[in-house]
Amino acid sequence: MLEEGKIAEGDYVLLVHKNKSWLVKVKKDKKFQTHISSLDLSELIGKEYGYKTKDGLYYAFKPTLIDHVMNFKRETQIVYPKDAAYTILKLNIKPGSFVLELGTGSGAMTAYIANFVRPNGKVHTFDVNEHYIKIAKENLANIGLAEFVEFKTFTPEIKENYYDAAFVDLGDPWKLVEIVWKALKPGSVAAFLLPTYNQLEKLYSSMEKRFFPEETVEIFIRRLQVAENRTRPQNFVVGHTAFLIYCRKIV
Amino acid sequence: MLEEGKIAEGDYVLLVHKNKSWLVKVKKDKKFQTHISSLDLSELIGKEYGYKTKDGLYYAFKPTLIDHVMNFKRETQIVYPKDAAYTILKLNIKPGSFVLELGTGSGAMTAYIANFVRPNGKVHTFDVNEHYIKIAKENLANIGLAEFVEFKTFTPEIKENYYDAAFVDLGDPWKLVEIVWKALKPGSVAAFLLPTYNQLEKLYSSMEKRFFPEETVEIFIRRLQVAENRTRPQNFVVGHTAFLIYCRKIV
Amino acid sequence: MLEEGKIAEGDYVLLVHKNKSWLVKVKKDKKFQTHISSLDLSELIGKEYGYKTKDGLYYAFKPTLIDHVMNFKRETQIVYPKDAAYTILKLNIKPGSFVLELGTGSGAMTAYIANFVRPNGKVHTFDVNEHYIKIAKENLANIGLAEFVEFKTFTPEIKENYYDAAFVDLGDPWKLVEIVWKALKPGSVAAFLLPTYNQLEKLYSSMEKRFFPEETVEIFIRRLQVAENRTRPQNFVVGHTAFLIYCRKIV
Amino acid sequence: MLEEGKIAEGDYVLLVHKNKSWLVKVKKDKKFQTHISSLDLSELIGKEYGYKTKDGLYYAFKPTLIDHVMNFKRETQIVYPKDAAYTILKLNIKPGSFVLELGTGSGAMTAYIANFVRPNGKVHTFDVNEHYIKIAKENLANIGLAEFVEFKTFTPEIKENYYDAAFVDLGDPWKLVEIVWKALKPGSVAAFLLPTYNQLEKLYSSMEKRFFPEETVEIFIRRLQVAENRTRPQNFVVGHTAFLIYCRKIV
Repeated sequence: MLEEGKIAEGDYVLLVHKNKSWLVKVKKDKKFQTHISSLDLSELIGKEYGYKTKDGLYYAFKPTLIDHVMNFKRETQIVYPKDAAYTILKLNIKPGSFVLELGTGSGAMTAYIANFVRPNGKVHTFDVNEHYIKIAKENLANIGLAEFVEFKTFTPEIKENYYDAAFVDLGDPWKLVEIVWKALKPGSVAAFLLPTYNQLEKLYSSMEKRFFPEETVEIFIRRLQVAENRTRPQNFVVGHTAFLIYCRKIV
Repeated sequence: MLEEGKIAEGDYVLLVHKNKSWLVKVKKDKKFQTHISSLDLSELIGKEYGYKTKDGLYYAFKPTLIDHVMNFKRETQIVYPKDAAYTILKLNIKPGSFVLELGTGSGAMTAYIANFVRPNGKVHTFDVNEHYIKIAKENLANIGLAEFVEFKTFTPEIKENYYDAAFVDLGDPWKLVEIVWKALKPGSVAAFLLPTYNQLEKLYSSMEKRFFPEETVEIFIRRLQVAENRTRPQNFVVGHTAFLIYCRKIV
Repeated sequence: MLEEGKIAEGDYVLLVHKNKSWLVKVKKDKKFQTHISSLDLSELIGKEYGYKTKDGLYYAFKPTLIDHVMNFKRETQIVYPKDAAYTILKLNIKPGSFVLELGTGSGAMTAYIANFVRPNGKVHTFDVNEHYIKIAKENLANIGLAEFVEFKTFTPEIKENYYDAAFVDLGDPWKLVEIVWKALKPGSVAAFLLPTYNQLEKLYSSMEKRFFPEETVEIFIRRLQVAENRTRPQNFVVGHTAFLIYCRKIV
Repeated sequence: MLEEGKIAEGDYVLLVHKNKSWLVKVKKDKKFQTHISSLDLSELIGKEYGYKTKDGLYYAFKPTLIDHVMNFKRETQIVYPKDAAYTILKLNIKPGSFVLELGTGSGAMTAYIANFVRPNGKVHTFDVNEHYIKIAKENLANIGLAEFVEFKTFTPEIKENYYDAAFVDLGDPWKLVEIVWKALKPGSVAAFLLPTYNQLEKLYSSMEKRFFPEETVEIFIRRLQVAENRTRPQNFVVGHTAFLIYCRKIV
């Protein structure tokens, strides 16, 4: 076994070349092939993370959770880091939290939440689509987070007064307002992710006796290109991912 | 002692009236006085969080970490939730992380990080200003997070190869690039918060041999006003808080 | 009479102190009083525009159309320059255009359009509120643009096949789609200004047989604070004024 | 000759299919070929603008100035409509204005300005690159605006005290501050378009004795997708085109 901080066979590394990156599993004698060059992955074994390859073309970094999630196998849209991050904070998640998720999808948000409820909290995630659950399970198992999650096919029998927070990413969340409300402990926060204005309005009107709508937002992120004497914002920006509603259970 | 989920004397509650809120410590026979009304806080004791006061004017919610931080005692600018949240994710923070913070200020970011490294991680935070450290210490003690933090007056003797992540919120971070680089484990991420583009450029040129600059961003958040038949974005928006640089240690 | 480019009695000047400004009519022996100082307006007479006052506190500039409009007497919201400007271009307005305006309000947009249709074009503007029309008339007369405008109380008898462009700023524009359609020449563009997304949707569904919806936008403007070594975006931004719909008459 | 409002041979039409469009010159017996279909342009002759083709695939609209400019022949970046429009208003341009332009490029801004100074104003535009001037001249001639413009190879001999407004779109405008200042009448506005922060700062410091910097901005435009029950902002947005500085001549 290698020392901590060093790359071992079987580890994932993030290979970065300028503003492109690839998540790669290190295997002896395996080639990593791009349009840029061919790299023998054996070269990385035993090196420290942050290593620059001999051809000067790549850095080999230790993947972060975001790197893993952005490379998840998926058949659905996934929650963007900007939206996931703010939601984690607004939901008041912490180690030990019990969190309900409705709409597992590919498990992107499941992974972000699971990361932060460790070691003694748990995510209970539900989806009507068993195929999605299978994919999500694999994705989380792959990065060691599956043990903090229970994956379930959707059922209206959800524990009551049990959860510290809820995250809902479904097309028709107004049908689930009552279930979410019951599932949450008093004083807990629920977050809903929705792409259209119409859904916002429909959700608001269906939840007014159950939740206090604290904040509805959209989040933008703009990258900058920093370089001596020519620093400027980048040309392209994602203009819309989703609206996010944060609300608190009332009794 | 009261049941979980119920308001007890000495607890903090967030009193919310429409889009205004106040963080209040519940005391028997104490009045909470605003321009709206006078509320006898005794009324809240024994009630569940999410309780609506008899006068119909307030909800009493359980404060989230954001609620506490936004009400911190402070003599400095504090990191906004939108910026803190994305940074937590980019820094790959998780329960058990050891995090270096340079520039404690009022302890806002310290609190956000401490929340997520619990129970067995730690934040080591440094500031040259002892008065700020005193304030930050009180702020964190007040919400039960001080035990996950070591507060220190700034010293260049910082542990080497020790930290999983670093957050730097100082006016002249280029002076500390070397220290931050040494302090981090290989493959770790550092984040720098800076308000001007000039600082971005200066930092970039000073760190090019030590860090790979992965992403420099600014984050915007826009609130919406949702109401039947008159849903629209809100009129005012915070146009700028700071630029955020995320970079990875190279070796 | 004074030379061109010099300030005469009776002229309007824009007095600017740092980022504050005031539109002032120059009168001999009149004092202009602010919290900053008292300025004898006689000092300005005969000076060139761009003059700096002897006390070093003000510049006296020649007001632009925007300066005048932002200082219009008003009892309604007025169209922001960012929205007005883009609309002028999208409506394909030029000297000689005949433009229909429904919803005169205080005459802000009327003034912007009138400015650009001179000398041989015309704006026909309608409002149900006679008081608004009176105010708008005064506002435009005050800056010499009234002769390019016909102000009328609203009537459904509007010329057919006559206008090169139409601008509609009313709460319920779907009621007027047919009138606007008839009034426009084939191939002309109509613009609608609406603050809520609900109105967008309602308008779209009512106009689909009459207009091709080319573009629906919202426009943001962010100011920067430029100063040596501390250049940064400004802190506050207007987050929403209105949505703008641009569509073309179909036959 | 055909009636006004009807399409004649030799006219330009904008053929629109959903959110795509093409600027096409109508010729008898000519086919317009896309991946969508083949259209015999003869069909359009004698039809009114706004006509829907028999195959139900296209509308034939009368091109606006924006349509023409976006289809200009070009070898340079062109000014975006959002930036051009706000600049026209800030520069206080109107029929009869004399406007100086430094940096003709492909003539996009030249065309927008020329459109609004008609019939008795003029644009004097300068570029060091004769090839660009040739292209710009052709572009403007093509849409009937060349007669309102004088195109010149750059020379420091520019008329003094002559212009009502100036627009500068060059990489090193600080070298021209003195020339622009002299060229403008007292009280006139100059606009500078610059893509980087560094240029802003350099320009500011070079002009502080000559111009009052009124406003430095960046303008964003976000399109919405409006459809019954699924109205939402569009996914992609242009994140940066340029910064715009508006300043007034001081004396």
